[in-house]
Amino acid sequence: MTFENDKKNFLTKQDKSKKGSIDTRVKPLLNIINSSLQYYTTSSCSGRVYFWQGTGKKNEMKWVTVSHELITSAFFNLPPIPGTVWLRFEPFILHVCCHDISSAHTFLNLARTIFKKSALVAMGKKYLVEVRGSEFLEMPFLQEGKLVFSGDLSWLKNWINSQLEQNWEKMKKFEKEIEKES
Amino acid sequence: MTFENDKKNFLTKQDKSKKGSIDTRVKPLLNIINSSLQYYTTSSCSGRVYFWQGTGKKNEMKWVTVSHELITSAFFNLPPIPGTVWLRFEPFILHVCCHDISSAHTFLNLARTIFKKSALVAMGKKYLVEVRGSEFLEMPFLQEGKLVFSGDLSWLKNWINSQLEQNWEKMKKFEKEIEKES
Repeated sequence: MTFENDKKNFLTKQDKSKKGSIDTRVKPLLNIINSSLQYYTTSSCSGRVYFWQGTGKKNEMKWVTVSHELITSAFFNLPPIPGTVWLRFEPFILHVCCHDISSAHTFLNLARTIFKKSALVAMGKKYLVEVRGSEFLEMPFLQEGKLVFSGDLSWLKNWINSQLEQNWEKMKKFEKEIEKES
Repeated sequence: MTFENDKKNFLTKQDKSKKGSIDTRVKPLLNIINSSLQYYTTSSCSGRVYFWQGTGKKNEMKWVTVSHELITSAFFNLPPIPGTVWLRFEPFILHVCCHDISSAHTFLNLARTIFKKSALVAMGKKYLVEVRGSEFLEMPFLQEGKLVFSGDLSWLKNWINSQLEQNWEKMKKFEKEIEKES
C-alpha cells in the first residue's frame, strides 16, 4: 500500500512552490491524472516568464518579478537594480509519480507524443516522469540598471506571449490525449 | 545477443552529427563508457555556442556559425542577416544506451550526482539515458542585421567561456567518477 499511501499523503499536503498555489490552467489536467490509480502529480507549472538575479542554480537565485499569464509591456518596467537581471521563459512542466516501471513507461510514451523532452527522472523507490515543453528563453535584460536588449520590446512581448499560448494549447491537447486513454 | 550486436553496429557506423566528428574533449569519457559490456554511447557534445535562425524546432533551424571551443570577440561579428538571429549556448549532452533497466538505473544514479538534469529518455526496446548540463542561453542577438544586445560584448564573451569551462570541468569529474566505478 506504499504507493497509495504516498499518493494520499502527497495530495493532501500543502503546496510548497514559490507561487504557493496550483495555477487554475493546469488543474483539469492534474485532476484527470490524479483520478487514475496508477498515477499522482507532485508538481506542475503551466509556463512562466520571470526576471531573476544570481547564479542560476536553484538555491542561488532571487526572483524579481514573474508572470504566469500573458504579459503587457509594463512587465518590462523594472527599477534600476544593480548587477545583472536575467529574463527567462520556462515552458510547461509536470512531474508525475507512477505506480511502477510499467505504468511509467505507458505515461512516458503518451507524454512524448506531444512533449518530446519528457523523461523518467527517478526510478527505484519512486518512478517519476517529467513532462516538459521544449521552448526556453534565457537572456541578460538589465545590467547595472541599464537595459541591454536594444531591440523592439513589443516584439519580445509578442514572442513571449506566443510561447505561453503555444504551451497552453499543447497542455490542452495533452489533457485530451490522457482523457482518451483513461 | 541483440544488445551486443546493436552496440557493435552502432559504434562502427559513421558519425551523422552536424559536426561530422566526435570532439576530442569528450573522447576519453566515451571510451571508458564503451569499454563496459553494459553500455554504449550513441551521441555526445561537450558543449557549444552557436547562432541560429528559424523556429527553433530541430528540423526548422539553420545554423549560422558554431564554436565548440572558447570564443573570442570575433565570434560576434556576423554579416547583416535579415530576420532574427538567435544566440544559443547548449551544455554538455550525452546519450548512453544501457543493457537493461537495472544498468540504466545504475548509470542514471551516477550521472545525477554531477548532472542533475540527467534522465531516462527511452525504455522498452532500448534503455537510453540522457546526461546533460543545466546551463542555457537563448537570446535574440541580431534583428534585420542590427545588434539587439546593447550590453558589453566582452562580458557576454566571458560569460559564455566560463560556461564552457565549467562544463568541461564537470565532464572531467564525471569521467573520473565512471572510472572509479568500472
